[in-house]
Amino acid sequence: MRVLGAIEAGGTKFVCGIGHEDGSIIDRVSFPTTRPEETMAEVYRYFEGKNVEAIGIGSFGPIDPIPGSPTYGYVTTTPKPYWGQFNLVGAVRDKIDVPIGFDTDVNGAALGEYTWGAARGLDSCLYITVGTGIGAGAVVGGRLIHGLSHPEMGHIYVRRHPDDAFAGTCPYHGDCLEGLAAGPALGQRWQVPGAELGPDHPAWEIEAHYLAHALMSYVLILSPQKIVMGGGVMKQSHLFPLIRAKLQDLLKGYVQHASLTADIDSFVVPPGLGDNAGLAGAIGLAAMALAQE
Amino acid sequence: MRVLGAIEAGGTKFVCGIGHEDGSIIDRVSFPTTRPEETMAEVYRYFEGKNVEAIGIGSFGPIDPIPGSPTYGYVTTTPKPYWGQFNLVGAVRDKIDVPIGFDTDVNGAALGEYTWGAARGLDSCLYITVGTGIGAGAVVGGRLIHGLSHPEMGHIYVRRHPDDAFAGTCPYHGDCLEGLAAGPALGQRWQVPGAELGPDHPAWEIEAHYLAHALMSYVLILSPQKIVMGGGVMKQSHLFPLIRAKLQDLLKGYVQHASLTADIDSFVVPPGLGDNAGLAGAIGLAAMALAQE
Repeated sequence: MRVLGAIEAGGTKFVCGIGHEDGSIIDRVSFPTTRPEETMAEVYRYFEGKNVEAIGIGSFGPIDPIPGSPTYGYVTTTPKPYWGQFNLVGAVRDKIDVPIGFDTDVNGAALGEYTWGAARGLDSCLYITVGTGIGAGAVVGGRLIHGLSHPEMGHIYVRRHPDDAFAGTCPYHGDCLEGLAAGPALGQRWQVPGAELGPDHPAWEIEAHYLAHALMSYVLILSPQKIVMGGGVMKQSHLFPLIRAKLQDLLKGYVQHASLTADIDSFVVPPGLGDNAGLAGAIGLAAMALAQE
Repeated sequence: MRVLGAIEAGGTKFVCGIGHEDGSIIDRVSFPTTRPEETMAEVYRYFEGKNVEAIGIGSFGPIDPIPGSPTYGYVTTTPKPYWGQFNLVGAVRDKIDVPIGFDTDVNGAALGEYTWGAARGLDSCLYITVGTGIGAGAVVGGRLIHGLSHPEMGHIYVRRHPDDAFAGTCPYHGDCLEGLAAGPALGQRWQVPGAELGPDHPAWEIEAHYLAHALMSYVLILSPQKIVMGGGVMKQSHLFPLIRAKLQDLLKGYVQHASLTADIDSFVVPPGLGDNAGLAGAIGLAAMALAQE
């Protein structure tokens, strides 16, 4: 089997690995995301001698994933110091001359879950991560969503919970979904890290309200066959039944489909690949790049 | 050139026509939507002797557009009397044995605008109609969006305008987008039909607020390369600049793309095909069905 390389480029850490076209991961390393030249040196070191035939990169963003665009392959307007307008694909290609697949970390994870995980065998799915930030990617008709650029689903506005007066943490939008429901919002609203709030804390009912409102919009706009929810906040597994019940309540039976009624427990689910969704997704992006050569 | 048939199946009227694969429409008729057997008799009469090689149907909904589903081709849970669970594709096929394409009216219009209209040459677009109801369809990576079923983008929840206490008209969701911003909501809120409200009436600032909020969600979730706005309410062309300005205000520069900044006037636009978007889209669905045979 061919050896494929994977880079999960996160704002906090990079994970590099190698694997095969069946989604198996045979090796991995992880190191902190510092300055680009330093971080890329680690990337080069890892892949040296690995003889990968393609590399897939799932990256933090915003990025430019549109082939043919002058800034294709760049991390673009990120507020992360040193990384703004950094040509990530170009930096990899400088040293490793193989086909390179490039997309957002969440589009990568959606591809991983679609190919080998919870959405295997379906035609569409959505992957949302709720952690330090909120982002989502989606497969529609077997293809990752692009258009003007890539989706930024974490920044939609959602209706306020009536008991919540928290201002929101998003530097752009204040109280968009990410500003109200990502990990930092939980921590600031309750003055305690989310992981330390007990399952009966009122925080979770508010959290589920915002996430269910987001899922309502995703269902009505994209009609995905499955929604996979990952990220640090979703480790609170008691959130799943709360979100499912609220989503049903919001839909009010308008969309008639068993996935939204009797089978909702298998419609909104945790990642089938667990914490491997991102790295496996990058393997998927590598396989896709190889197939397109 | 081959002759293709088109059916724009609306809740108020049916439009039938014939045209060619270049999107040209060479004949059309229109008749009210009454009971299915009566309306279908008109459809049969129209196509008799026309020798169409395929038929495309863009239909009011909800419908089942998923090939292979037991109710594929049906108008499903519509509240419209007599039409619930009506097998529309089956009724056409009973009398006219040619390939049949079937989708929502708005997916059809999106296809028309993508193939021959305002979004020609692009890879993605969204078409939204604001009229008796609100619905939207979209092309992503050259394909119409399907998943569990078809999108129902008119029913997303949007944030309330601070000056608006109108309860909303949607029988399912009350104050969802359609409940707050479709034609009947305008009429009931102001006790005057929308078409009679002057361009300086405060109605339009509120209307633009809701439509811009919807576009914000569509942009962040789908990243379309163009948004085409049609339907009776959008005949009020003074709405376009209001909506564009509010959309920019909501995005707050987060998505960096010329289409959302300097070029917004050519990003949110009226239909390139005018009132023909729906019928041309049905021609497109017919051409697609023929290509897939």
